[in-house]
Amino acid sequence: MPTPTKLGWIGAGRMGYAMAERLAKGGCDIAVWNRTREKALPLEKSGAKVVNQLEELSTRDILFVMVATYDDVKEVLARALASASKGGKPKMVVECSSISLEGSAELRRMLKGKGIAYLAAPVSGNAKVIKAGKLTFVVSGPRHAYDEARPYLDMMGAGSSYVGEGELSRIAKICHNVMLGVVIQNLCEITVLAEKAGMPRHAFLDFLNKSVMGSMFTRYKTPALVNLDFHVTFTPKLLRKDLDLGLDAGRRFDVPMPLSSLTRDLLQQMIGRGMSEQDFSTLLLMQAQNAGLKLEPEDVPVSDGLS
Amino acid sequence: MPTPTKLGWIGAGRMGYAMAERLAKGGCDIAVWNRTREKALPLEKSGAKVVNQLEELSTRDILFVMVATYDDVKEVLARALASASKGGKPKMVVECSSISLEGSAELRRMLKGKGIAYLAAPVSGNAKVIKAGKLTFVVSGPRHAYDEARPYLDMMGAGSSYVGEGELSRIAKICHNVMLGVVIQNLCEITVLAEKAGMPRHAFLDFLNKSVMGSMFTRYKTPALVNLDFHVTFTPKLLRKDLDLGLDAGRRFDVPMPLSSLTRDLLQQMIGRGMSEQDFSTLLLMQAQNAGLKLEPEDVPVSDGLS
Amino acid sequence: MPTPTKLGWIGAGRMGYAMAERLAKGGCDIAVWNRTREKALPLEKSGAKVVNQLEELSTRDILFVMVATYDDVKEVLARALASASKGGKPKMVVECSSISLEGSAELRRMLKGKGIAYLAAPVSGNAKVIKAGKLTFVVSGPRHAYDEARPYLDMMGAGSSYVGEGELSRIAKICHNVMLGVVIQNLCEITVLAEKAGMPRHAFLDFLNKSVMGSMFTRYKTPALVNLDFHVTFTPKLLRKDLDLGLDAGRRFDVPMPLSSLTRDLLQQMIGRGMSEQDFSTLLLMQAQNAGLKLEPEDVPVSDGLS
Amino acid sequence: MPTPTKLGWIGAGRMGYAMAERLAKGGCDIAVWNRTREKALPLEKSGAKVVNQLEELSTRDILFVMVATYDDVKEVLARALASASKGGKPKMVVECSSISLEGSAELRRMLKGKGIAYLAAPVSGNAKVIKAGKLTFVVSGPRHAYDEARPYLDMMGAGSSYVGEGELSRIAKICHNVMLGVVIQNLCEITVLAEKAGMPRHAFLDFLNKSVMGSMFTRYKTPALVNLDFHVTFTPKLLRKDLDLGLDAGRRFDVPMPLSSLTRDLLQQMIGRGMSEQDFSTLLLMQAQNAGLKLEPEDVPVSDGLS
Repeated sequence: MPTPTKLGWIGAGRMGYAMAERLAKGGCDIAVWNRTREKALPLEKSGAKVVNQLEELSTRDILFVMVATYDDVKEVLARALASASKGGKPKMVVECSSISLEGSAELRRMLKGKGIAYLAAPVSGNAKVIKAGKLTFVVSGPRHAYDEARPYLDMMGAGSSYVGEGELSRIAKICHNVMLGVVIQNLCEITVLAEKAGMPRHAFLDFLNKSVMGSMFTRYKTPALVNLDFHVTFTPKLLRKDLDLGLDAGRRFDVPMPLSSLTRDLLQQMIGRGMSEQDFSTLLLMQAQNAGLKLEPEDVPVSDGLS
Repeated sequence: MPTPTKLGWIGAGRMGYAMAERLAKGGCDIAVWNRTREKALPLEKSGAKVVNQLEELSTRDILFVMVATYDDVKEVLARALASASKGGKPKMVVECSSISLEGSAELRRMLKGKGIAYLAAPVSGNAKVIKAGKLTFVVSGPRHAYDEARPYLDMMGAGSSYVGEGELSRIAKICHNVMLGVVIQNLCEITVLAEKAGMPRHAFLDFLNKSVMGSMFTRYKTPALVNLDFHVTFTPKLLRKDLDLGLDAGRRFDVPMPLSSLTRDLLQQMIGRGMSEQDFSTLLLMQAQNAGLKLEPEDVPVSDGLS
Repeated sequence: MPTPTKLGWIGAGRMGYAMAERLAKGGCDIAVWNRTREKALPLEKSGAKVVNQLEELSTRDILFVMVATYDDVKEVLARALASASKGGKPKMVVECSSISLEGSAELRRMLKGKGIAYLAAPVSGNAKVIKAGKLTFVVSGPRHAYDEARPYLDMMGAGSSYVGEGELSRIAKICHNVMLGVVIQNLCEITVLAEKAGMPRHAFLDFLNKSVMGSMFTRYKTPALVNLDFHVTFTPKLLRKDLDLGLDAGRRFDVPMPLSSLTRDLLQQMIGRGMSEQDFSTLLLMQAQNAGLKLEPEDVPVSDGLS
Repeated sequence: MPTPTKLGWIGAGRMGYAMAERLAKGGCDIAVWNRTREKALPLEKSGAKVVNQLEELSTRDILFVMVATYDDVKEVLARALASASKGGKPKMVVECSSISLEGSAELRRMLKGKGIAYLAAPVSGNAKVIKAGKLTFVVSGPRHAYDEARPYLDMMGAGSSYVGEGELSRIAKICHNVMLGVVIQNLCEITVLAEKAGMPRHAFLDFLNKSVMGSMFTRYKTPALVNLDFHVTFTPKLLRKDLDLGLDAGRRFDVPMPLSSLTRDLLQQMIGRGMSEQDFSTLLLMQAQNAGLKLEPEDVPVSDGLS
């Protein structure tokens, strides 16, 4: 492990906090900035240094960014790197937020102009996945930069995958979310079928989760599907947006995507029927309505496979 | 562990052999019959007893069946239980083959007539999954029978799930295979998109397999998708048949199944185009053709997540 | 026109009455039987003879059947032909009801045994279409029988088409109804889109009906779509049944049918949501709900293209 | 008929020529310009005046435009109206080409700036449809302008429909083309099914065309489907573009469009498989391939319902 590397971290929201914490606990030299400084302070217990000014991060070797939107990414990087040319600058920026292909490419041009390498490194997983040590990254950009950043990426979870140059990792993440949409929709189809045939949802999903078809995703959505707790992890509109990004990529690259198209259409239907404020897994409710089934929570304790 | 229970096992094909072996190695008192006795003989090294006559199994406490078709199941059970009433009979039969709902119900009636409990216990996984210790069962039938059989089921792999009375487990298995069809099709859609966008398939699938969307299934199909080795594990026609069973169940229970229907139609297309002799994962070839992409094996060693 | 031919007619329901009336008004020698004799009596004003007993039709040259169900067809023909061998028998039976392929084949065998030719001749159109003189027939069976029956078929409407031997016309009718389902669903998709974009439905459909895409069908469903009068002409469940017959034929003949499959699934959804008692054109209501649109009747007089 | 109105006509391609000819033969005072003047000259036999300079059309009362692309529309109108403010100007422009919503709106703004009313008036039909007198228009823009232009629109074919203000007619035309795509795809599904079941295509389509499902469209595509003459009337890529425009409108107005989405995907597949140079009705070939059917031309004379 290349110990003397100085890490910078921007963004201590639910996910960013948990990610930075893993680096700090892993013994890294890490300096963190967050818009609301108080939220980041507990990280000091894990060994991180919480800075007051974004500018203080301009001299870290590797600068990680994990914030909410592309506008945030642009703003914090502009400020962090404002004085980059004078007093030193990061060797690379590793951008882990969910931003668009176009935004990512714009960022790359901007950083190239400053002589800073750039890795696009979106993640698979939510805050609970991070805590369970199972976050993964998909990374694109200069290979040598990836080789240097990799130990830190891997320290944050269960590994990283390098898919090539440029913004390819953004497309990989879109593909991942397209699959997420298709899998949840199909899971709802078969879960409703299983229930109408006479199986309790928790029993059916227990089998499915243990089976070769089970994934971390099917497991952590199981409590929602069994007990109908649909607090938002990701909204139907955001999922529809990702499906649209996937279909747009399909158009650009001339790839037919029948299941993805149909899933996009079902999300549109869901939103049209007013089911847009809860979690996307309310697809189960729509599927049940479409099958003439009234769902009840089963009130059974079920594992999410993480905690 | 209730040690004195005497187990009987019918069928030492690729999967049956591996399953019986796990019971034998686990210390069970197990007697095995196979049509071609020689194939079963090596099990004796693991502690199993290989019998000559099916009738010898009629006095085992629990009789497992793992053969190829429903016709085989009927024949071997008829012979094994021919003298059941006289000299004793099994407490229960545990049927693990992939047979139809109707066949399973017929079997249940037949066994009920003989006073023998019956568990329908199809599996998730192939021979490699068994060897990796990851086979799972979905079980239906009398609860007390399941409770008694469970230790042996669990000894064969990664656990079992009880979903209720009657033939419910057969429907659960159909749902599982429907999902398998939908997931492989969507996996092909996004893999072709990723490749046309510029990613090597092995890199993209490495990410996906590590991600929250990765399953045992996506992992063990990865060598086929990367290196285009499409030796048959399951034919397109068999998968189409399972999709048809799922859609039939959807009709019976009034459940719309949009993604499942579309996947069934794509399998039909595949067969119409003459792609019916290789593995169902040749869906990737069809998807690539539909996207104007000529696939080449990547000739990269990739893990199947099992061995 | 071969004038001396004696026609027999069984069934004076809404459609049968209108069909027999056209033959009678066309100057044919026609004898009619109906279960409720009174309903048929007004046909005498048009020159038909209304008989009391089914048996009286056994000596007509061509015997037409237009009743509700296959069970009715079997019963009336059995009675009409009970004494067929003794006192003479029809040269042929022309069966115009909507019966299954299997029923039609069974009928053919029965009639063949009696030495009576059989034409399967289902229709396209409803009672209003008949009155407008636009009914058409699709016919299968012996070619010579068709040649003989054709003048009478054509006299009832806008023509007939001969598609070959056996029950092929039943499959043709199923294909016709599959298309009907697909067209109404797509019509609902684009009509809802047009309305949300700002067009009155009657204006949009006026264009569409006049355009190259307009059909008798799109025109006679227009009043329902504009003024939301959904009295039943054909129920969602009957349409779903025809889609199922089409998909079954697709399975038998290995033909993928993507749009037909998806339409079937949408009808299933409609029924699951409780929209099963009104006309199938309530697909418009479902489509509007799925698009978050509250429909109002436009209360505009629109033509159905028939009256 | 308001006789003294002076009409101007820009564009004497296959469709424009036939349209202008109908106005000339109808006795209108019409002046025509075409880029290649010779192609327009024969119109003088019908009573039209063929001008040399676009500028000569600036003083016509109603100026029709029927050219190939939006760029052409912009260029010819700019030139025709260059001196509009000085020596007089048209009361209105009626734009009949297939241009985009955005292009149409831009045109409207430009003409509004010059004080010229603007009707967006795309058509349904091809050159053969025009010759058969069955062309129709869908029109949007100021109602009074439509009332004034209507007699001339109706003289060119079988009528026009006014759908409202602005560019609504462009959306109506997109909806029309979406339906065209869905109908041809479904027609191919059932035609292949009918053939595999044993019907000649011409017999099946004869029935369908006469039936309530028959449209001008199904009739004029019949020769292609029967005799496999796939010379281009409209390419798969152009149809895919119109489907994309329809789906984009669906996204903008939050309307799910399942059949339209799936049809778009099938066109993508068709293009991916290299079937992009012939007519879009080669969807029949793809459908046949997907069903394992080798098609042969039937070499039967069939009507297109027009000539």
